[in-house]
Amino acid sequence: MSERRYTLTISCPDRSGIIAAVSGFIAQHKGWIVEASYHTDLETQRFFMRQEILADSLPFDLIEFHAQFTDLAAEFKMDWHISDSAQKKRIIILVSKQDHCLNDLLHRWRSGELLVDIPCVVSNHADLRGFVEWHGIPFHHVDMTDKADAFENIEHLFRLYHGDAMVLARFMQILPPDLCRRHAGQIINIHHSFLPSFVGAKPYHQAYQRGVKLIGATCHYVTDELDAGPIIEQDTVRIDHGDSVDDMVRYGRDIEKTVLARGLRYHVEDRVLVCSNKTIVFK
Amino acid sequence: MSERRYTLTISCPDRSGIIAAVSGFIAQHKGWIVEASYHTDLETQRFFMRQEILADSLPFDLIEFHAQFTDLAAEFKMDWHISDSAQKKRIIILVSKQDHCLNDLLHRWRSGELLVDIPCVVSNHADLRGFVEWHGIPFHHVDMTDKADAFENIEHLFRLYHGDAMVLARFMQILPPDLCRRHAGQIINIHHSFLPSFVGAKPYHQAYQRGVKLIGATCHYVTDELDAGPIIEQDTVRIDHGDSVDDMVRYGRDIEKTVLARGLRYHVEDRVLVCSNKTIVFK
Amino acid sequence: MSERRYTLTISCPDRSGIIAAVSGFIAQHKGWIVEASYHTDLETQRFFMRQEILADSLPFDLIEFHAQFTDLAAEFKMDWHISDSAQKKRIIILVSKQDHCLNDLLHRWRSGELLVDIPCVVSNHADLRGFVEWHGIPFHHVDMTDKADAFENIEHLFRLYHGDAMVLARFMQILPPDLCRRHAGQIINIHHSFLPSFVGAKPYHQAYQRGVKLIGATCHYVTDELDAGPIIEQDTVRIDHGDSVDDMVRYGRDIEKTVLARGLRYHVEDRVLVCSNKTIVFK
Amino acid sequence: MSERRYTLTISCPDRSGIIAAVSGFIAQHKGWIVEASYHTDLETQRFFMRQEILADSLPFDLIEFHAQFTDLAAEFKMDWHISDSAQKKRIIILVSKQDHCLNDLLHRWRSGELLVDIPCVVSNHADLRGFVEWHGIPFHHVDMTDKADAFENIEHLFRLYHGDAMVLARFMQILPPDLCRRHAGQIINIHHSFLPSFVGAKPYHQAYQRGVKLIGATCHYVTDELDAGPIIEQDTVRIDHGDSVDDMVRYGRDIEKTVLARGLRYHVEDRVLVCSNKTIVFK
Repeated sequence: MSERRYTLTISCPDRSGIIAAVSGFIAQHKGWIVEASYHTDLETQRFFMRQEILADSLPFDLIEFHAQFTDLAAEFKMDWHISDSAQKKRIIILVSKQDHCLNDLLHRWRSGELLVDIPCVVSNHADLRGFVEWHGIPFHHVDMTDKADAFENIEHLFRLYHGDAMVLARFMQILPPDLCRRHAGQIINIHHSFLPSFVGAKPYHQAYQRGVKLIGATCHYVTDELDAGPIIEQDTVRIDHGDSVDDMVRYGRDIEKTVLARGLRYHVEDRVLVCSNKTIVFK
Repeated sequence: MSERRYTLTISCPDRSGIIAAVSGFIAQHKGWIVEASYHTDLETQRFFMRQEILADSLPFDLIEFHAQFTDLAAEFKMDWHISDSAQKKRIIILVSKQDHCLNDLLHRWRSGELLVDIPCVVSNHADLRGFVEWHGIPFHHVDMTDKADAFENIEHLFRLYHGDAMVLARFMQILPPDLCRRHAGQIINIHHSFLPSFVGAKPYHQAYQRGVKLIGATCHYVTDELDAGPIIEQDTVRIDHGDSVDDMVRYGRDIEKTVLARGLRYHVEDRVLVCSNKTIVFK
Repeated sequence: MSERRYTLTISCPDRSGIIAAVSGFIAQHKGWIVEASYHTDLETQRFFMRQEILADSLPFDLIEFHAQFTDLAAEFKMDWHISDSAQKKRIIILVSKQDHCLNDLLHRWRSGELLVDIPCVVSNHADLRGFVEWHGIPFHHVDMTDKADAFENIEHLFRLYHGDAMVLARFMQILPPDLCRRHAGQIINIHHSFLPSFVGAKPYHQAYQRGVKLIGATCHYVTDELDAGPIIEQDTVRIDHGDSVDDMVRYGRDIEKTVLARGLRYHVEDRVLVCSNKTIVFK
Repeated sequence: MSERRYTLTISCPDRSGIIAAVSGFIAQHKGWIVEASYHTDLETQRFFMRQEILADSLPFDLIEFHAQFTDLAAEFKMDWHISDSAQKKRIIILVSKQDHCLNDLLHRWRSGELLVDIPCVVSNHADLRGFVEWHGIPFHHVDMTDKADAFENIEHLFRLYHGDAMVLARFMQILPPDLCRRHAGQIINIHHSFLPSFVGAKPYHQAYQRGVKLIGATCHYVTDELDAGPIIEQDTVRIDHGDSVDDMVRYGRDIEKTVLARGLRYHVEDRVLVCSNKTIVFK
């Protein structure tokens, strides 16, 4: 993704002519579309699209794009958004003691694979301060004794650092419902089971008890219902009767890391559109 | 599996010396072990083992084996079983209208991959009579109007044909609890979801509603609790937002077929030992 | 895919405005696009697209579509094609003695999953006549003693039955180069390895010798270079040191079946576009 | 793996009675076997076994075990080895500039998942010094201008630090054949393709050119023939026509990490036995 791009995402009631209207608008301004994806949700009869346009191919900036596009958007009753790849999203990572997802995300970030800013890392434990600060990233230890206070503090940090998204990288704390609602579509969690199986605490223990032959991980948006938000990405890995809970935890870490990394990447690149309690992911 | 083999399966309380005692017994009679697997279940502290022995390497038949082995088995408080690959298991297949699993199993049977006898196929519809009879296999249509009668009829057929196992190859009918209990470990079902997600009817519709990114299939022993018996085999396949319920049904058929075929194969080769509500599968 | 659809596939030199022009043309005639996919190949700088349009939403038939679309197509130097879902493709299946792929394809066909006509099955052995004819499909046994004669015969049958594609469902015979060239993009093979590993004969034996930990299958278009044509679909399955060549053959059959079925489906639905020696598969 | 264990690995000509003799020996000394695996290679007619024994269940240490076991080993012409989980293996990591595998291994090490000592990291670039030294691990930059000198230096470091194994974690340099031969079974490489496809340089470019639909990674022992040593572990990941070489490199990193980590774990736990140019991996 070396060249600067605008990413346009749209959802609107389905009808004929939407693609023609939008691509006609872009063509009329000599815009060069490098990626285009479409989907119609049959239940809601809504149409979803995503287009990546080379930024330099358009004769105007995003402010002017808004001005020019607004009439067409109104005609089709569009919910729409355009973002600029030059403007990196700001991701606040929340973590507990288990640091495999944090370690993975920070490596992707420092190697230039994950194109985001990470203005700070927040944790309910002090253990990871050294590792985070080695990266030159501020680390905030939030004491969870008073949960209400703690989450107010977390939300304060999110605003202070102008966070675009909060990533719960094995944070192991249940967020208050009102915080979830205020930041709908902004909070990404990795749950260590193949949802909807094994909601809540200790999913690997639950999986062990049930005797499943595969375990999984799920990256989803957080809503006010526990582990029930729109699923962005999932994966599974094979286990067998010889695997203890500890083995499952170990296998699980590897899929948690990759599932969270993929899910976050989709989010950051505006590939995820929410439709009811489901996601459309334009890969 | 060209050479004739005896398969010895054992479960007993765990202690040291079990492998030595059993393999010592076999070695003393010049038996040649070609496959050996062991497992200790940490929760129940039970030991499980399976050994395949070349039949011609032992100087006695199975009746004599029983006589010779009984003291050792008693000393270790073993539940044990020995089978002879020359004696094929008799599998009764139950099917409804969807025939992808039946078609798959019958092909594996007629090509010599699945080494079983199929004394009959039972269905609550007459549609598949022609296809089954083309294979030279008796077909029984059981009317389900009176369910009690129908299941009595099915159990009668199972006994009449000396069935060793009943395979519900998308039979789509819930078996009565007492029938399940009478044939514990003998009835194998293929459920079209990744259990414990989406128990019961229309699992693909449930999966579609939840917006999962993978769907699955589960082969399990039937117990008196619906879709809750010991899991033998599972697998998943990736879907995305573009897939309708019909697409999911189509993808699902392919994993149902392979998961049932693998699970049945494990069962037929005495690779599956049940421990509480879980299975040990010695592959 | 219950509603009748037109599928329009296009490839042309890349430039801006192609999507706008094509979707503008369709919108102008009130056509309803239900699926749309695009791709630019960076090496050849060619643009590829596929659109499914509800047939009844357009005011004209395919002949009129050709007449109306021809100027636009010329302007963009398009190679293009439009097909009608009401007109099923005619698939000639070639098979040897191994019938797992044939059995799988015929089941998908008779259950209505694979929407094609199968005007005949051709084999160099007589063994499968009964099974094929049970389906009401003509079976032709072609003697391979004189290979030149045999392939002339096969090509004759292909023309006689107005075949659209030839599927080598484990045919195990190498086609003459000139036949491959005359039917470029029309002949689909399933090779029982993960190409480019293990080209040619006995790939499972080759895999066993090399000690690989996964084996695979590859569905590809046949060209005049053995096993080197454009790849449509591939998959792999895990094996281990305990698996003999026979075990690998058995596992392999399951992926051969699904990989061929998926590849053929993509072909039949006009989802595969060839670019140099690679395929674009719009799933 | 909390309790201290001895791991006994044996290979010898196949005959009946081996399991009985070995497990009899262990039982006679009241040893408690917690994991036992067996395999017969049909081509070489050699038998392979691995047993984990609770260290405290045996009345003697490893020196005494050697003394006691030597007659039995001679009788069966065994190549055998016993290791002690209390004695961690010493792993020297070689790395170039790409650090995803290094980052992954160091995290597994510092989190206690990978139970090894890492006495030093060696690189032909200075870039990763800070990250390695943050872990308290010595870092050696070896200049590759004079390759003969450089590899002598590397071998010197390996001996100086009493290395048990050398891990080429994307080292990107071809080792001299004599060094490979001197350390047969001690040097582990991660190759970024699904071998035997795409041997040598730039495998992702080769994969892109061939148009494969899956890419892979291979962990193998290094021999004097490039990328042709015994394979320990492999995996694949799906790609499609939309993925550029850069995308493939990115997907590839994730499988390289997990395949190397799994392969190294098997090696460290004495689960890998080499037979001709293949491995037996007792998982």
